[in-house]
Amino acid sequence: MAHFASAYCNINTYPVTKNFFRITDSYSAISLNSALQTHRCPKKIFESCKLRQQKPSIFRATATPTSKEIEKNPLSGSFQGDPSSKSKKVMIIGGDGYCGWATALHLSNKGYEVAIVDNLVRRLFDHQLGLESLTPITSIQNRIQRWKSIAGRTIQLYIGDICDFEFLSEAFKSFDPESVVHFGEQRSAPFSMIDRSRAVYTQHNNVIGTLNVLFAIKEFSEECHLVKLGTMGEYGTPNIDIEEGYITITHNGRTDTLPYPKQASSFYHLSKVHDSHNIAFTCKAWGIRATDLNQGVVYGVRTDETEMHEELCNRFDYDGVFGTALNRFCVQAAVGHPLTVYGKGGQTRGYLDIRDTVQCVELAIANPAKPGEFRVFNQFTEQFSVNDLAKLVTNAGKKIGLDVQTISVPNPRVEAEEHYYNAKHTKLIELGLQPHLLSDSLLDSVLNFAIKFKDRVDAAQIMPTVSWKKIGAKPRTVSV
Amino acid sequence: MAHFASAYCNINTYPVTKNFFRITDSYSAISLNSALQTHRCPKKIFESCKLRQQKPSIFRATATPTSKEIEKNPLSGSFQGDPSSKSKKVMIIGGDGYCGWATALHLSNKGYEVAIVDNLVRRLFDHQLGLESLTPITSIQNRIQRWKSIAGRTIQLYIGDICDFEFLSEAFKSFDPESVVHFGEQRSAPFSMIDRSRAVYTQHNNVIGTLNVLFAIKEFSEECHLVKLGTMGEYGTPNIDIEEGYITITHNGRTDTLPYPKQASSFYHLSKVHDSHNIAFTCKAWGIRATDLNQGVVYGVRTDETEMHEELCNRFDYDGVFGTALNRFCVQAAVGHPLTVYGKGGQTRGYLDIRDTVQCVELAIANPAKPGEFRVFNQFTEQFSVNDLAKLVTNAGKKIGLDVQTISVPNPRVEAEEHYYNAKHTKLIELGLQPHLLSDSLLDSVLNFAIKFKDRVDAAQIMPTVSWKKIGAKPRTVSV
Repeated sequence: MAHFASAYCNINTYPVTKNFFRITDSYSAISLNSALQTHRCPKKIFESCKLRQQKPSIFRATATPTSKEIEKNPLSGSFQGDPSSKSKKVMIIGGDGYCGWATALHLSNKGYEVAIVDNLVRRLFDHQLGLESLTPITSIQNRIQRWKSIAGRTIQLYIGDICDFEFLSEAFKSFDPESVVHFGEQRSAPFSMIDRSRAVYTQHNNVIGTLNVLFAIKEFSEECHLVKLGTMGEYGTPNIDIEEGYITITHNGRTDTLPYPKQASSFYHLSKVHDSHNIAFTCKAWGIRATDLNQGVVYGVRTDETEMHEELCNRFDYDGVFGTALNRFCVQAAVGHPLTVYGKGGQTRGYLDIRDTVQCVELAIANPAKPGEFRVFNQFTEQFSVNDLAKLVTNAGKKIGLDVQTISVPNPRVEAEEHYYNAKHTKLIELGLQPHLLSDSLLDSVLNFAIKFKDRVDAAQIMPTVSWKKIGAKPRTVSV
Repeated sequence: MAHFASAYCNINTYPVTKNFFRITDSYSAISLNSALQTHRCPKKIFESCKLRQQKPSIFRATATPTSKEIEKNPLSGSFQGDPSSKSKKVMIIGGDGYCGWATALHLSNKGYEVAIVDNLVRRLFDHQLGLESLTPITSIQNRIQRWKSIAGRTIQLYIGDICDFEFLSEAFKSFDPESVVHFGEQRSAPFSMIDRSRAVYTQHNNVIGTLNVLFAIKEFSEECHLVKLGTMGEYGTPNIDIEEGYITITHNGRTDTLPYPKQASSFYHLSKVHDSHNIAFTCKAWGIRATDLNQGVVYGVRTDETEMHEELCNRFDYDGVFGTALNRFCVQAAVGHPLTVYGKGGQTRGYLDIRDTVQCVELAIANPAKPGEFRVFNQFTEQFSVNDLAKLVTNAGKKIGLDVQTISVPNPRVEAEEHYYNAKHTKLIELGLQPHLLSDSLLDSVLNFAIKFKDRVDAAQIMPTVSWKKIGAKPRTVSV
């Protein structure tokens, strides 16, 4: 509650013009409005807010290191510069998150000029829900300072909420991006199914944030290429092959290529469907160039860059709200908890290593969509059922002496547990993606990592706590 | 600006518990938040707000007239009661609007127990944009009182914003509806394309309002049937036949029936696409029963009930923002203004008489969807191109001595001006819809009506003022 209150406080007390310092201006207008009506800011917190305002910290500096700096850089050998000049300046919205941080470092290392835009609300969710990354992560400010000291490259930082268009405008005008990679959304399906206010928050935050990004591109940098993170979950589990964004349909003797029908199954997944439709329209109406990366389930935590220093370490979620299937299974195996298969375990999805996420984003940026083009890539490398994953983890565990058990728990979601699934994913391969396959990286990149940090595991976070059917209108506290 | 300010004032000063009296609590949380940041409430307006709070007016009373009341009613002969007991209590969200008001009267006249839920924001838009209905309309309070005096039937009134869940909860608990007809959305494509803040308002208001309705049904009346107004514009203009909500696709040797692909072409139309996806999900996950009425362009103004008294008269919009093609053409013909065809005029859409709108809603209520069913009806009776409409109005004008000219104006929208269009619309016919055809009603129901009120026409409202391509981030004042 204190976190809520402090977030709200700032809205009332921060001068509107100081956009860059709204560090806790994280919740959307909806929550704020409801907060203004229902919560009162205790005097103590209010004063603490005011205090913090007096010491705003800002991390903006010129971005491109001089050639001298690069020469001095002990890692200059691994600096893989020379991105096309057209897409050199990349704004990464949500660059403090799981995929965003890895991508920011990767692109910076590849010679792109990177700015992170983030309201840090993902860290607030951890506080509110009583969760913690398996890996210890440091503040975004420390991360960026450490990256500069290690790689000699500056990442600019704009802290604020993209639902606040005034803030977003200033960030756009200041950085003038040639590409925007938009990870800045509430990205957990269970989070969106906790209660009404989280469902509304998720859709408001994601849809309005993306609308603002589209307007900012139209207003300030029309040539800018939007690389938007969608999800394979937009398609659901149709009984026909899943294509990449579009399907050619012949019907009553006529033929057209139309957007692939969407059947999302959480308020989060739905928010991405809404985004896709909005973006497609602006490409057509305004000539926006956009790539929608319908990403599968990401696993792993290591990338070349996050391995360079412990302060660059990425987050690793294993809890019932933010943890994805494979990461969670590896943590369960590491601590001797049975793998929790939801229902029958036949749920099949596309998966990819986080090292491929950063590759895919780089490929999308380096090969931008044309003006007016709404391009959709299915971003995953392999398909597995939940039962497949359980078997893989069990076998990998055996190799290092772990006795891994599996149990079926009642499925908290509403989803088919046995279904046809065949999703195309050739476009990124055609652009040059070289996949890391799970069989090669399961032990090194995930399971051994989970074992390394197993003393930090909070077993109470593992089981699902959010039910698709039981979600209600009443605000719910999930914290253990 | 005064209207904005007074609306915002109430948020700050009204006690949260007095939900029913938030007469001007009309703008969404987004606008409110931005208002809190950017507008300050002048002291004078603030005090006037406080003053109004001291005199709340409320229009809630027992709803069902006694048999004695009905006997006394001079119109009891036209009372067509006996709706199925399952769907007797109907909440009409947006019941003060063009389709909503006609539907509320129609259902009340048919013996349904009706409650209107409306925040009256449509009236605020007229003030803000400097627009006015061709027909003089009286306040919702007067309308309801007049209806009681004419028909002996009470319509309950809940004034408030469905984006405010606390208000909506109270309305649900108090009225306990068996059906909810949801017209309560910002329903103009041009309005949604005025500027960023209207685009964001439209999507926020429509998507979050509908989410709240879904949560209210789940929480308070799980058996309640949601009848949601969608739009034919959700489908766009594909090069294949448009089906009713779903299409069976055979692809690579496998077959599935999937949601019909959506290609909406304004932020308004997109908001309805988002609603459709959200509703479909809740039908599947929670067992909500819902009917999505993908309505075509509505024309006409008379219904049996609105004709009973001038104070029951419906609104009639002919302006470039809220006026739909046919209504606008008839007003142009009446005042000697050339009919303004946008671009080539080959744009083809489905149309229906407002007397069929009320019939369709009644049919949907009387034949509810099953629990868990997401049913989609295409609600229109005939297809016309814009050029077809211009010819029809020209010929009808000739019959009464009007010399009607047609001009092509640059199309302010982004849309195909020549395209294939063949949309199915059999499901409502199968339920018993008896269409009013345009050829029969053009003169009586629209053109002569426009002539009757032609002295009220403001010619400055007729031309399009909103461009799909020129929309910007900066707030825009459209008022003439």
